[in-house]
Amino acid sequence: MSKYHLVVYDVNEKQVGKVHKILSRYLFWQQNSTFEGYLPKSSVKELLRKVRRLLTGEDALVVYFLTSKERLRKEVLGIDKSRTVGKIVV
Amino acid sequence: MSKYHLVVYDVNEKQVGKVHKILSRYLFWQQNSTFEGYLPKSSVKELLRKVRRLLTGEDALVVYFLTSKERLRKEVLGIDKSRTVGKIVV
Repeated sequence: MSKYHLVVYDVNEKQVGKVHKILSRYLFWQQNSTFEGYLPKSSVKELLRKVRRLLTGEDALVVYFLTSKERLRKEVLGIDKSRTVGKIVV
Repeated sequence: MSKYHLVVYDVNEKQVGKVHKILSRYLFWQQNSTFEGYLPKSSVKELLRKVRRLLTGEDALVVYFLTSKERLRKEVLGIDKSRTVGKIVV
């Protein structure tokens, strides 16, 4: 069963493009450094294994494991930059 | 009753310092552009009113309303930059 995940990252400029590229293969881009989406456990493990290799020094990435999007209330101020078009790997 | 909130923002450089300052009066800094913490409804409204005034053009801020920290599973890759010391307004 897929659960809803939220990923936010604070990564140095040299790696940020690569991290973004990997994440966009699994999740939806919400805004800079923020991705969301449903993923099964196996894909989460795969994703984190790939991203972990890129993190160095002061880089940080946080994954929030949420149950479902339906039970997640969210409010966007300013522009909603999320584009729900994206390649989903499940 | 306070609920657990997660705030992520994607704000232009001119405003990012002010947004950070306001948020740090209400929530804990987790990493750049990411704050977390318990807040009652009244404080959330107050916080969003203050932040909304600063957002212009392409600025975006997302608030995730979560039930409780206990039911929130979270994994940090790289450095855990969260400092749990911070002024809490409840």
